[in-house]
Amino acid sequence: MQTMSLIVIGSVAYDAIETPHGKRERTLGGACTYIALSASYFTRTGIVAVVGDDFASEDRKWLAEKGVDLEGLEQVAGKTFFWSGAYSTDMNDRLTLETDLNVFADFQPKLPASYSRKPYLFLGNIQPDLQREVQGQMKEVRFVGGDTMNYWIRDYRDGLLAAIRDWDFLLINDAEARMLSGETNLRRAAQRILDMGPSTLVIKRGEYGALLFRRDSLFMVPGYLLEDVFDPTGAGDCFAGGFVGYLAERGFDLRNGHFDVHELHRAVIYGSVMGSFCCEEFGVERFRTLTRKEIDQRFAEFRRFTTF
Amino acid sequence: MQTMSLIVIGSVAYDAIETPHGKRERTLGGACTYIALSASYFTRTGIVAVVGDDFASEDRKWLAEKGVDLEGLEQVAGKTFFWSGAYSTDMNDRLTLETDLNVFADFQPKLPASYSRKPYLFLGNIQPDLQREVQGQMKEVRFVGGDTMNYWIRDYRDGLLAAIRDWDFLLINDAEARMLSGETNLRRAAQRILDMGPSTLVIKRGEYGALLFRRDSLFMVPGYLLEDVFDPTGAGDCFAGGFVGYLAERGFDLRNGHFDVHELHRAVIYGSVMGSFCCEEFGVERFRTLTRKEIDQRFAEFRRFTTF
Repeated sequence: MQTMSLIVIGSVAYDAIETPHGKRERTLGGACTYIALSASYFTRTGIVAVVGDDFASEDRKWLAEKGVDLEGLEQVAGKTFFWSGAYSTDMNDRLTLETDLNVFADFQPKLPASYSRKPYLFLGNIQPDLQREVQGQMKEVRFVGGDTMNYWIRDYRDGLLAAIRDWDFLLINDAEARMLSGETNLRRAAQRILDMGPSTLVIKRGEYGALLFRRDSLFMVPGYLLEDVFDPTGAGDCFAGGFVGYLAERGFDLRNGHFDVHELHRAVIYGSVMGSFCCEEFGVERFRTLTRKEIDQRFAEFRRFTTF
Repeated sequence: MQTMSLIVIGSVAYDAIETPHGKRERTLGGACTYIALSASYFTRTGIVAVVGDDFASEDRKWLAEKGVDLEGLEQVAGKTFFWSGAYSTDMNDRLTLETDLNVFADFQPKLPASYSRKPYLFLGNIQPDLQREVQGQMKEVRFVGGDTMNYWIRDYRDGLLAAIRDWDFLLINDAEARMLSGETNLRRAAQRILDMGPSTLVIKRGEYGALLFRRDSLFMVPGYLLEDVFDPTGAGDCFAGGFVGYLAERGFDLRNGHFDVHELHRAVIYGSVMGSFCCEEFGVERFRTLTRKEIDQRFAEFRRFTTF
C-alpha cells in the first residue's frame, strides 16, 4: 500500500441523477467522494467529511478498497447530504431538483492527528472560513489549493479572499473565474486572480478543456472527445482529483523554486483524463472497473491527438 | 512573386459592423476576401467572385498588393454584396441586421483559363451546385474542399451531398456538423460525414478551438486565448485561408498515399493562428500590418502553450 500523501475535504453525499441515458435513485456522490476516488489512482488519499447514520457499510468498504483512508470520515446521527438533479437532452443544462444538506449543514471539519503532517491538501468547495481553518491545522503542507463556487464568491467574498491568499493553486470553472475577477476575458480574469494569491490557476471549461495560468506561462488543453457522455456529474471533481493526485504521486514541490512547469501541464492532462472517464457511466460507477493502465493509455492518446 | 497555386471562390462584400469596441459603417468583407487575404501569407491566391461598380479601386489595389490575383474578380453594374451585423456585449451572439445580396444574387462563377490548372481549390460558402460546377472546370486539382452553411444543409441537401462527395476536405463549424449528420455527439457526427465523401473533416469551434477527423486519426486543438477580441467577423474564414494556404505552400498531396498527417495538424494550427489575428482588429484591418514573422511566432507560441 502506498503512503498516504493527500488530504481532501468536502462533501460526501447520495445523489439521484437523471440523464437522457437513464436514472439512478440513490448513488454515492459528493465532491469529496469524486476527488478522492480519482486521486486514489495516483496516491493514497485521506478524506475529511461527514455522513449520517444512513451511510451504507458497502460504500465505506468500497472506498477503503479503492485506497481512500476513512479515519477522517465522521459519522453522526441524521441523514447524509442528498442531492438530486436532471440533465437536458443535449446534456448542456443541469437542473437541481433537490438539495438536502442534512448532516452536512453543521459540518465542522475535524482533522485526525495522523493527517496533519501530510504534504498535499485539496480544499473542496465548502464555506471559505472552514477551508482556512483546516489549512491552519496542517503543519507541513507543501502544496495546497482548492475549489469554490458562485455562492461563496458572491456572499462570502472577504472570507474567500482571505482563504485563497494562502493557496498555491485555485481550480474553478470559467463562469466562477469571471465572477471572482469581474473580467469577461479569461486572460485578464486570470491575471486578476493570480494577484489574489495563488501562483497557479486552473480553469475548467467542461467539454471544451482546461487552461492553466501562471505569471510566466500558459497551458491550453482541448477537451477529450468522448463517443458517449453518459453522465457528467462529478467530472469537474474527478479533474481536480487527477490534477492533485498526479502531483502528489510525483512528489511535486512548487515551493522549492526548481520545479518543472511541465509537471503542472501533465497534471492538467491527467485531470482531463479522469474527468472524461467519469462521464462514461453513472455517478462513480466508472471507478468500479477503471484501471491505472486505462488511465495511462488515455494520457498517451491525449498526446497523440494533440501532436503537431 | 510566388507562383499562384490556390483558387478561392466565394463572396466579396462590404460590411457594417458594430461590436462593444466600436463600429464601422463600410468596410471590406466577404468570406472570399478573408480566405484569400489569410491564404496570401502562404501562397499566391486567385479569387473567383463578383463585385458591383461601387467597388473601390483602393480595395482592388490593396488586395493585389497583398498577393491576391484578381483576374477572376468580375465587376458588373450594380451594388456589391452588403452585410451588416452587431455583436452582443460578451461577443458570443451576433445579430444580422441587413443582408443585401445585390450583384451576388446572380453570381455565376467564371473561371479564367489561367486558373483551371491550379492544384488547390477552396470552395467558399455558396450554392452547392455552383461549387460543383467550378470544381468541374478545374483540370488538375490535387486538393479540393470547402465550406457550407445551415441554409444549404437544410434546403439544398441533395446538391450539397453531390458536391462534397468529390471533396478531399470539408471545413464547417460544430452546429453545421451536427445539422449535416443528424448526430449531436461530434465524434459520431464526424464518422457520418466522413461516410459522405471527404477523407478529412475540420470542425471549427470558434473560441474553443478546432478538431480534425480522418478515418484513422483525430487531432484536437484548443482556441488561442486572446487578450482582447475586437471583432470576430471573418475569423472562421481566416482559419480556412490559413489551413488551405499552409498546405498549398507545402505542396501537400493527400492523394499520393505518402503524405504526413502532421502536415494536416500543422495546417489546423496555422488556421487557428490566422483566425486569432483576425479578431484583433475590425474587419480585415489586422491584415494591413500583419507579417509572416508574427504568424510564425504565434505558431511557435501555440506549440509552447500546448506542450506537456
